[in-house]
Amino acid sequence: VRPLVGAVDIGATKTLVTVSPYPIESWPASRPMVRFATPRDPVACVERIGRALDLLAGREMGALVAVGCGTPGPLDRERGIVIHSPNQAWRDIPIGPWLSERVRVPVAIDDDARTGALGEAVLGAGAGADPVVYLTISSGIGSGLVLGGALVAGAHGLAGEVGHLVVDRRGPRCTCGNRGCIEAFASGGGLARRARRAWPRATTVDGRAAPHSAADVFRAARLGDPEARRLADEAAWALALGFASLAAVLDPEVIVVGGSVGLARRSFVRRAAALARHRVMRESAGALRVTRAALGGASVLAGAALLAGYLASEEGVA
Amino acid sequence: VRPLVGAVDIGATKTLVTVSPYPIESWPASRPMVRFATPRDPVACVERIGRALDLLAGREMGALVAVGCGTPGPLDRERGIVIHSPNQAWRDIPIGPWLSERVRVPVAIDDDARTGALGEAVLGAGAGADPVVYLTISSGIGSGLVLGGALVAGAHGLAGEVGHLVVDRRGPRCTCGNRGCIEAFASGGGLARRARRAWPRATTVDGRAAPHSAADVFRAARLGDPEARRLADEAAWALALGFASLAAVLDPEVIVVGGSVGLARRSFVRRAAALARHRVMRESAGALRVTRAALGGASVLAGAALLAGYLASEEGVA
Repeated sequence: VRPLVGAVDIGATKTLVTVSPYPIESWPASRPMVRFATPRDPVACVERIGRALDLLAGREMGALVAVGCGTPGPLDRERGIVIHSPNQAWRDIPIGPWLSERVRVPVAIDDDARTGALGEAVLGAGAGADPVVYLTISSGIGSGLVLGGALVAGAHGLAGEVGHLVVDRRGPRCTCGNRGCIEAFASGGGLARRARRAWPRATTVDGRAAPHSAADVFRAARLGDPEARRLADEAAWALALGFASLAAVLDPEVIVVGGSVGLARRSFVRRAAALARHRVMRESAGALRVTRAALGGASVLAGAALLAGYLASEEGVA
Repeated sequence: VRPLVGAVDIGATKTLVTVSPYPIESWPASRPMVRFATPRDPVACVERIGRALDLLAGREMGALVAVGCGTPGPLDRERGIVIHSPNQAWRDIPIGPWLSERVRVPVAIDDDARTGALGEAVLGAGAGADPVVYLTISSGIGSGLVLGGALVAGAHGLAGEVGHLVVDRRGPRCTCGNRGCIEAFASGGGLARRARRAWPRATTVDGRAAPHSAADVFRAARLGDPEARRLADEAAWALALGFASLAAVLDPEVIVVGGSVGLARRSFVRRAAALARHRVMRESAGALRVTRAALGGASVLAGAALLAGYLASEEGVA
């Protein structure tokens, strides 16, 4: 039988499951997949994942050697526990051990931002490059650093929080409690919060309802509203200074940008990259490459497959 | 005979040479050393280094297996060439190959900031910690990142420029051509440039000549001058935001601060560390450790010994 790894992406709303030949050499654009609404009951969730893996492995006439799983954070990687997932109201759920018991192979878990970063860096837009920084800009900014093919964890597992690079001492409040983080300026949630502060609900801009989402801000900016322009401008600058600081500290071969805002707002990201090139040392300006995530919705799955692959090679499978 | 590595620190004004048992296990507080004024003639410099190494190795009744050398940058590490050293007016000097020919063992070179970072991180204040960020704050800010015992080079050898983290989009001009880098706010040279702009030469502050050095700014700030206070305050904040950004991206186990300004201005560095703890995520606040360099003037020598040790183990000596 062919050795396979299982890959699972437990999302806030839906869960994706697939399998990949092991060792993993590439990530094809399409791949048989099972998807279902993430059950609130974690026992049911594990059972659905187990059935999906059985089905997919059977179809491939292969046998699982390990399973990787991107999950909501915060979590305890070592013990495979999701400490808290607000969407499912999960608390201290040992998803790794439960799933491992169900599928009878070792299971590795990591949070979805880091798992997606690993997938994009190694099998997606960062394939072949080193170091790679991945930013997923959606309601917040998730990220991960990949050096020599492995995620940088830091001394306490807290590395890779690129969204919390501070670019303005007096900037807007961030969800992390501080001020002037990139996330507070340039994430979907950050822009929406700034918009709600700038335009009380009652007002209108050019005859339309006042902006209350990042999309609204970008639209109003395009229509020429000066306040929206200022917010969009500051968002691009914050992202640019973040890119510049990453270039100074890490000299990444490529910075990969994904996430709903990152992918939908091409000109925004392109502008930030152009601004950043004027804010780095001359040698770095030519070297600073910012590109779009390539795996779309599959980056967490690809990273989960890699987690499984690393686990399998550590455990001496293959 | 005992295997030894040679360690050389070619400084702008003086050159230090020592030897260490190989493999290198620690860096004793004192060690036999030869020091001389760095000759402007690179051939003479290599000859003096060679003689010093012969003398020291003979005294230890050992034999060199490799030599490491911290040199002024910019340089071509691979080929062992100092591309430009303004103090000695050296241009394209193949110091590595020349020294290797003289001492008949392989020679590794790296720039002094990176070499000092490696020494402090592995054998000095960062010993046992991982990752380690080292900042040397003197006229500029040099730095290095050490991950898993090795310097992070980045994709183009440009990683570790912590002094060029951007903390204020509209901040003062930096020597690198950009604005708002930490170095522009918090280095000796940056503070001196800000002081000269704030106080035209003719003016006096409290009956004294106007500040024109970093030390003057700190003194005037202590005496209560509001403008000097503002500059010292902004310097501490810039350094703090740099620490906070490093914590967010790399989660270092320890940030080691050395250099003439870094070591002389204890309360300045301590204040920056305290401010930084309010500007990181809650989990990181307790984890953020900033400490003083421990090797004093020997950090480049210790790093050079490590460079030699890595080279020896790569080449299969020992």
